Amino acid sequence: MASSGEEWSPDTLAFMDLAIQQAKLALDSLEVPVGCVILEDGKVIAAGRNRTTETRNATRHAEMEAIDVLLDQWQKNGLSQSEIAEKFSKCCLYVTCEPCIMCAAALSILGIKEVYYGCANEKFGGCGSILSLHLSDSKMLNSGDVLGRKGFKCTGGVMASEAVSLFRSFYEQGNPNGI
Amino acid sequence: MASSGEEWSPDTLAFMDLAIQQAKLALDSLEVPVGCVILEDGKVIAAGRNRTTETRNATRHAEMEAIDVLLDQWQKNGLSQSEIAEKFSKCCLYVTCEPCIMCAAALSILGIKEVYYGCANEKFGGCGSILSLHLSDSKMLNSGDVLGRKGFKCTGGVMASEAVSLFRSFYEQGNPNGI
Repeated sequence: MASSGEEWSPDTLAFMDLAIQQAKLALDSLEVPVGCVILEDGKVIAAGRNRTTETRNATRHAEMEAIDVLLDQWQKNGLSQSEIAEKFSKCCLYVTCEPCIMCAAALSILGIKEVYYGCANEKFGGCGSILSLHLSDSKMLNSGDVLGRKGFKCTGGVMASEAVSLFRSFYEQGNPNGI
Repeated sequence: MASSGEEWSPDTLAFMDLAIQQAKLALDSLEVPVGCVILEDGKVIAAGRNRTTETRNATRHAEMEAIDVLLDQWQKNGLSQSEIAEKFSKCCLYVTCEPCIMCAAALSILGIKEVYYGCANEKFGGCGSILSLHLSDSKMLNSGDVLGRKGFKCTGGVMASEAVSLFRSFYEQGNPNGI
């Protein structure tokens, strides 16, 4: 993970800013404010925000929302399983908070190329805080393994203070969902 | 987890047999053969089978399929977020193979009461093999924590040989999906 004080490229900041905008939309909807975007070849191809309250489904984290947008689109376009895997392997995800263990495992199963995140998820983070699911594991990299997963490059701390500020706003409004 | 040779109750065997039937349906569809059922008050209220090939979505494991069946139903019935959480906390899931890290994390986030599984998932299992996400963690049990998760009771080894036999059949047919 990146050290604090690292200078980020303008592109990195711009993409994380788009993720922050998604998190703000979540906050406006009284959701825990986490947002993300997914890029392919340097272009944003999907966005997602936490929708656990709206959907009444505690697993609808921002990453799962954005992943499903992409998969729906690619399935409708008639892409095969291997074509979808190939496309995911070129994708990059920006998310305002470190992916939780569930989301990090999903990204690992899908074989995403790279993840940038904002603040750490010290309770349930799967990319360094509690587990390091982004690290490849030679035991798990057997391509013939149907339950396999891949590692992915992961960089944390991008605009972390902005992400934390949104969480603070959420809690200051009294956590209206009572969750 | 259960020791090998443990005697299971007739109900436990009957419910796992239903999960095995789901796994067989998956095998018939050239999917990795994993199946599950979810119970509430001793009655089966949802079933799921691995559909990663059909959906071209590598995260559509049996548990995620069954969970989404339930959530769709409960949302349509107008249940609130807290009512859904309350219902999940009384549910029990039977699955032919140990939930992977992603699925175990999802079940933990949703707060399921209990899980029974067949064979271990030695590559990516989240209920004892690689991680123990079913164990409660006092650090994570703060009910005011929006990223929180809960532990759940978990018992492995129920009809494990039947589950393994299905995997063997899948591989013997030449892993037709090439994954």
